[in-house]
Amino acid sequence: MSVWLQDCSWRELDEQRQAAKNVVIIPVGSTEQHGNHLPLGTDTMVAMLLAEDAAKETGVVVAPPLWSGWSPHHMVLPGTITIRPEILVELLYDVIQSLHAHGFRKFIAINGHRIVNISWMQLTAERAQRQLGVKVVLFDPAYMSKELIGLLDYGPVGHSEEIETSQILYKRPELVHLEKAVDNPVVPHELYSVDPCFTGDTLCYVPSTAADQKKAVELAGGTTGSPTKSCPEKGKVYHEYLVANLVKVIRQLQK
Amino acid sequence: MSVWLQDCSWRELDEQRQAAKNVVIIPVGSTEQHGNHLPLGTDTMVAMLLAEDAAKETGVVVAPPLWSGWSPHHMVLPGTITIRPEILVELLYDVIQSLHAHGFRKFIAINGHRIVNISWMQLTAERAQRQLGVKVVLFDPAYMSKELIGLLDYGPVGHSEEIETSQILYKRPELVHLEKAVDNPVVPHELYSVDPCFTGDTLCYVPSTAADQKKAVELAGGTTGSPTKSCPEKGKVYHEYLVANLVKVIRQLQK
Amino acid sequence: MSVWLQDCSWRELDEQRQAAKNVVIIPVGSTEQHGNHLPLGTDTMVAMLLAEDAAKETGVVVAPPLWSGWSPHHMVLPGTITIRPEILVELLYDVIQSLHAHGFRKFIAINGHRIVNISWMQLTAERAQRQLGVKVVLFDPAYMSKELIGLLDYGPVGHSEEIETSQILYKRPELVHLEKAVDNPVVPHELYSVDPCFTGDTLCYVPSTAADQKKAVELAGGTTGSPTKSCPEKGKVYHEYLVANLVKVIRQLQK
Amino acid sequence: MSVWLQDCSWRELDEQRQAAKNVVIIPVGSTEQHGNHLPLGTDTMVAMLLAEDAAKETGVVVAPPLWSGWSPHHMVLPGTITIRPEILVELLYDVIQSLHAHGFRKFIAINGHRIVNISWMQLTAERAQRQLGVKVVLFDPAYMSKELIGLLDYGPVGHSEEIETSQILYKRPELVHLEKAVDNPVVPHELYSVDPCFTGDTLCYVPSTAADQKKAVELAGGTTGSPTKSCPEKGKVYHEYLVANLVKVIRQLQK
Amino acid sequence: MSVWLQDCSWRELDEQRQAAKNVVIIPVGSTEQHGNHLPLGTDTMVAMLLAEDAAKETGVVVAPPLWSGWSPHHMVLPGTITIRPEILVELLYDVIQSLHAHGFRKFIAINGHRIVNISWMQLTAERAQRQLGVKVVLFDPAYMSKELIGLLDYGPVGHSEEIETSQILYKRPELVHLEKAVDNPVVPHELYSVDPCFTGDTLCYVPSTAADQKKAVELAGGTTGSPTKSCPEKGKVYHEYLVANLVKVIRQLQK
Amino acid sequence: MSVWLQDCSWRELDEQRQAAKNVVIIPVGSTEQHGNHLPLGTDTMVAMLLAEDAAKETGVVVAPPLWSGWSPHHMVLPGTITIRPEILVELLYDVIQSLHAHGFRKFIAINGHRIVNISWMQLTAERAQRQLGVKVVLFDPAYMSKELIGLLDYGPVGHSEEIETSQILYKRPELVHLEKAVDNPVVPHELYSVDPCFTGDTLCYVPSTAADQKKAVELAGGTTGSPTKSCPEKGKVYHEYLVANLVKVIRQLQK
Repeated sequence: MSVWLQDCSWRELDEQRQAAKNVVIIPVGSTEQHGNHLPLGTDTMVAMLLAEDAAKETGVVVAPPLWSGWSPHHMVLPGTITIRPEILVELLYDVIQSLHAHGFRKFIAINGHRIVNISWMQLTAERAQRQLGVKVVLFDPAYMSKELIGLLDYGPVGHSEEIETSQILYKRPELVHLEKAVDNPVVPHELYSVDPCFTGDTLCYVPSTAADQKKAVELAGGTTGSPTKSCPEKGKVYHEYLVANLVKVIRQLQK
Repeated sequence: MSVWLQDCSWRELDEQRQAAKNVVIIPVGSTEQHGNHLPLGTDTMVAMLLAEDAAKETGVVVAPPLWSGWSPHHMVLPGTITIRPEILVELLYDVIQSLHAHGFRKFIAINGHRIVNISWMQLTAERAQRQLGVKVVLFDPAYMSKELIGLLDYGPVGHSEEIETSQILYKRPELVHLEKAVDNPVVPHELYSVDPCFTGDTLCYVPSTAADQKKAVELAGGTTGSPTKSCPEKGKVYHEYLVANLVKVIRQLQK
Repeated sequence: MSVWLQDCSWRELDEQRQAAKNVVIIPVGSTEQHGNHLPLGTDTMVAMLLAEDAAKETGVVVAPPLWSGWSPHHMVLPGTITIRPEILVELLYDVIQSLHAHGFRKFIAINGHRIVNISWMQLTAERAQRQLGVKVVLFDPAYMSKELIGLLDYGPVGHSEEIETSQILYKRPELVHLEKAVDNPVVPHELYSVDPCFTGDTLCYVPSTAADQKKAVELAGGTTGSPTKSCPEKGKVYHEYLVANLVKVIRQLQK
Repeated sequence: MSVWLQDCSWRELDEQRQAAKNVVIIPVGSTEQHGNHLPLGTDTMVAMLLAEDAAKETGVVVAPPLWSGWSPHHMVLPGTITIRPEILVELLYDVIQSLHAHGFRKFIAINGHRIVNISWMQLTAERAQRQLGVKVVLFDPAYMSKELIGLLDYGPVGHSEEIETSQILYKRPELVHLEKAVDNPVVPHELYSVDPCFTGDTLCYVPSTAADQKKAVELAGGTTGSPTKSCPEKGKVYHEYLVANLVKVIRQLQK
Repeated sequence: MSVWLQDCSWRELDEQRQAAKNVVIIPVGSTEQHGNHLPLGTDTMVAMLLAEDAAKETGVVVAPPLWSGWSPHHMVLPGTITIRPEILVELLYDVIQSLHAHGFRKFIAINGHRIVNISWMQLTAERAQRQLGVKVVLFDPAYMSKELIGLLDYGPVGHSEEIETSQILYKRPELVHLEKAVDNPVVPHELYSVDPCFTGDTLCYVPSTAADQKKAVELAGGTTGSPTKSCPEKGKVYHEYLVANLVKVIRQLQK
Repeated sequence: MSVWLQDCSWRELDEQRQAAKNVVIIPVGSTEQHGNHLPLGTDTMVAMLLAEDAAKETGVVVAPPLWSGWSPHHMVLPGTITIRPEILVELLYDVIQSLHAHGFRKFIAINGHRIVNISWMQLTAERAQRQLGVKVVLFDPAYMSKELIGLLDYGPVGHSEEIETSQILYKRPELVHLEKAVDNPVVPHELYSVDPCFTGDTLCYVPSTAADQKKAVELAGGTTGSPTKSCPEKGKVYHEYLVANLVKVIRQLQK
């Protein structure tokens, strides 16, 4: 049987909810440029793929994805869809509120878009916890693989870099044009980094300006990082590591 | 190549946009109870299936779907997700605005949720036309098959009735539990009908109250209509009729 | 005694509410160009005239009118006042909420502006029903005269056409400059019509763009239809037919 | 010819605007309890009557009235309609913006509701002046008759007191039930008064709480002041004084 | 011990609240140009200084100040910070709501910015009273010194005039550059005045336009009034008079 | 001369802006419980103290502080003031927009409230950068002292712990009641930490629920961490380290 809520009849869904001890996963992503080689929907796919695999293992339900997130900085390249964060807060809140009305009590919002979506998701999570009395956790691949990432010999988190390219190569190879990938290694800035593994003093993240993004576009078609180093094998290790962590989070919530 | 925007890289998307003469389809649906026998995501699937088939025929791009719509009246049964219409207006507006920034000029919003979503979609469409100078048309299966529907010997538009059941039976049979379908024929009301083919005097549509919905639930698991009369053959006729109309609309816009 | 709430003292109003079994009418209209020959307030007057005559017959109260509605497409000609639909939703909601606080339970919102106002009125009606537990029905002349309109040998619904011109000729002749009326017959479009009697396949209504409106202006001073065919006799038949339907709706609600 | 915008065709309106040197009056009032003896619409009628008489004298246009205002404190008695002030700000703004689009440049918003509506009208007026570059003045009878009021031997501004009762007696006697009026003289409070003529130290106005309003209701059916002293003769003096001041304001703006 | 809430630990604050019988003062001001000679924060300082002195005398707590208010008309000169009034309403509401949650029941909002802030503060005060069941009073120096102001031989309320200059000279002399002050006496307008002591007929206050403000800037660096007449002695009389009135208001609320 | 904008006249401010190369600091904090021993305004004081010292060294201006932030989780103890994050976004935006109008181009928002305020500040910063074309950086002590913190032998970031206690002991000792401090060491959670130095896999931060906060209250009066280890000497090292980093950021922006 499908793990996706939208594939179930309401009776099936209700049974799955009870079996899952009221835990549900909501995949949140983005529709934004991902270099020359990755599909625009990469971030949402990451969230969906993680959700699907962990749901199969644990029997929890997965709600329909939010296909687009907050991506103002990637509007410099075609295909990017950005939703105002104040609208996303309300949208995700309504999803949680609706599911709460049907008995769900523990929500895992998976963010495939890394640091950018986290801001508005925090606002939603807090409001839902306070107003509905539910538990909402935010699962983000970049924060949930800090212990692994060094072992894989990956560079820092960039954009369309070897980390997400490898994961998509492993799970959706038909959508990757690796031959078109261009490297554009992350240049360290003094007192600033978007990598959650960064241990130095840093200003807090603010999405890049269009001006800054244009430079990355000119250099490497929107990529920051070294996608040419990608391979499905490492993608598999990374993906399974994240699924294992996600399963652990699900089990914690089900206790 | 995929017709879905999210599957393309930004370069592929940009090429497809130009080939499609700046026409793009946005599927809008609902996540709501569909009786004992249809999946919760039926309405979004209808919009996606129509978009996909028409896009294959014409080469236009399809944006990622909006999985949930305005469904306050179906919250009486599990799995329904309802988003406030004022949020949906802003969400769809941001999708259109983003795509407009990349050169799209003609938008077809397909609504798989029939009459309920139309209200807020009209507000979005007008605003987008006025503020962005684009063209937005609203394609709804129920309004777009008025000439066919009598020929198929279907009853009036209800909910999870033979019309949508047949279409899903044709395209996604694995998600239909026809053996669980219960009939609950539409009862005519004086001066009121939700069927767009209705030719009598009528008050305008307002979504049912929870109290009224509860009655339908008790009678037939959320169904209004006669789903047991469904068959994939009629579903095919209906689906292809709608695709043909959609292709006609695309061609009009491309002129 | 006056049927208008604003003319009553609060004691009179309270007595009338009880006698009317908690039914109240709210007239909603528009202030927008109505060709060379009709007053800017035509739509609101239509709603007020219907409300007044049905209220006299049944004893229900009529709330003060909302003089302006959603008319973005008619801003091309002087005198049109358009209110954003998101504001109108809140305005009408507050009217209903206030009257609910005083014991009214059944609301008839009469829309003299035809299809354009219906979208936002549906959003209000649903919210009021759900949050306040009241009943709200939307009475629109164009939808409520579908059975009659063919018999009168009228053309399709346009703007300032023979239908509303005749009604105003019958009830407020001093405001009509029939000698200045210019005909501009409705031109059928493939797959599109704003006439609720239309039985063909159709895209859903979206208010015209300013560009499209300008054409109508140039042709006939803002008119679409054949106002020169108007006469007060047909206006009387039409008006009384609508009043009879409105009285029927009131009686239904009072049961 | 009518001074009311809604009675004009768009061509007539445009001519009147030019003749009026782009000055327009917008009557704003309230629908709220006015004791045992005055109609619920008193405040809006006051604004309309002043506008109408000054417009006849000067040839300016009067826009359709806003029938309801901000009246949270009067919700304790039936028939009161209160709109949230944040909605009223947007509503009046849209009226001004629409009229601005047709060439009006100088707006007189007449407030028949005295001190309560002024707050939100100030917010609208400032925004309109800043964003549209227009001139907006706020004309309120209580502030515009400070020099006269002592001469008439009236008590301080209350509610449904001799001031507004006399004015309605003069202009709309058929709506006044003077025989039911009950006196409830204004009791002075230390450091607080709603009378704009008050010359002592005072806290700023805040609408009464429901608890405080209930006391007035019990004492005198919602009245504060001495309506039994009312007479149409003084009402005439008061009304004509205000009309004269309004004409003066119109002439100032036309310079 | 400090009278400021922010200086207390939560335990100290709770004790002070009980001793103060749940009365709290909230200083509200502005950050706006105050001529050549006064600091940008003058209005907030006025509110803080009054609050502090009255709190010391009565033992009530003072909440942290709102440093900026509504000052659109002073944006013509550097340093002015203006917040939209609709945001200020919500901000002050949240402050009141938070303090209400901790047991405070009577709120004195002191406005150092005179007439401009009053509009939005009234909206907040009413909402807080209605929704939270608290008491909110608005204390404004200009309205609270009407009886004194004539005795001091001051001119009418202007901007950075002798009234506020003298008060700041008395309490914060190090921030006043009296040698740079330029006089620009208030010019009477027909039917308009911002002085709360004005007894003639008047239109209601609307903040000046940028165009009007520019004139004042050119004449006297942003001043309206006669600051060169300022002296700390009169400032002391004025300040102490206001503190005495404020103490009176506190005592009233504590009863 | 004062570094605070509010202490300057508009002429002084304008000169300082030019000398500072259009860089301005905006201190943002919170008003929330800080255990038995620290003042409610600790976080805002931290932001103000850092701003003040760095401004003295560099000559930049400091805008008036935002005294309260987003603190829903600390509402369990008296004195906490929490503002909705969607209001804070607009408030800070208006501050930036106003200063931008006067020529400021580079903004340093210092957050004394650590991780909680960052979410909404990111939304503001991005919007300001995009809509106004300015540069906004977010300076947070916890993220800006990651390299130092281990050297000081401090435990992880908690609440009112030895880190902020030492800083306040150094700069505002009169407000600290160290004798009342109670230790409540941070208990590690699997897959979760609020410490920016944490290097393990972690879910993203969501403010605690009231239920969770109540536990901390019962244990240690609102403290998490070991404040009894605090000393002004370490506070000095920490404070000066942050000031040095802040000066570095200012210099970067001035280039």
